[in-house]
Amino acid sequence: MDMLNYFSDWDDVVEFPKKSRIFGEMDRADYMYVIIEGEVEVTLRGEPLGAEIEGGIFGEMAMINSALRSATATALRPVRAARVDRDNFRRIVKDNPDFALHIMAVMANRLRVADQVIAG
Amino acid sequence: MDMLNYFSDWDDVVEFPKKSRIFGEMDRADYMYVIIEGEVEVTLRGEPLGAEIEGGIFGEMAMINSALRSATATALRPVRAARVDRDNFRRIVKDNPDFALHIMAVMANRLRVADQVIAG
Repeated sequence: MDMLNYFSDWDDVVEFPKKSRIFGEMDRADYMYVIIEGEVEVTLRGEPLGAEIEGGIFGEMAMINSALRSATATALRPVRAARVDRDNFRRIVKDNPDFALHIMAVMANRLRVADQVIAG
Repeated sequence: MDMLNYFSDWDDVVEFPKKSRIFGEMDRADYMYVIIEGEVEVTLRGEPLGAEIEGGIFGEMAMINSALRSATATALRPVRAARVDRDNFRRIVKDNPDFALHIMAVMANRLRVADQVIAG
């Protein structure tokens, strides 16, 4: 699924300046983000977990099973992002199975990388 | 979503004796499993990544973005499991958004645990 194309005319778009913290661990979590422009780093207790660029998503874990952020997201460059709340997230999952499969693919990739790190 | 209930009359059910290896890292991967009875441990290069019991799933990552197993699954007790291939997986995702949300929740939980391990 082409996320950039799907979210290109999304109504709720937000901007974050370079080096700003978009959210922090244990913050209340109400949105997932799809990056339209820029780069975002995700860290946990200062340890880098990954980075995302245009078309990438972050904050999706809070859509699924928690109201609190499990990591910190920081803008590495000026960021413009489509903001998706829980209701819209569920609506898109229901209307568009490819969106669900895309989110699962992103999570599977992250899990694969994390498992490799753990197993050394 | 109640996975045990959903898969209780699934046609393709397989059994694995205690201590048997269900699949190993880099094996060709064609199925996800839903445990109907028993317990399965998942390891990577000998390091435990987690265990699943009745109602739990394993092998789902291969449904999404790879044809090779990223971990090893071993029966800790005699296991009976519903076996789901890629076509059925995609069909259920399309027909049943709650299934997609359930798989995402399982993956989000695994990722949360993995991230905590990595961040120490």
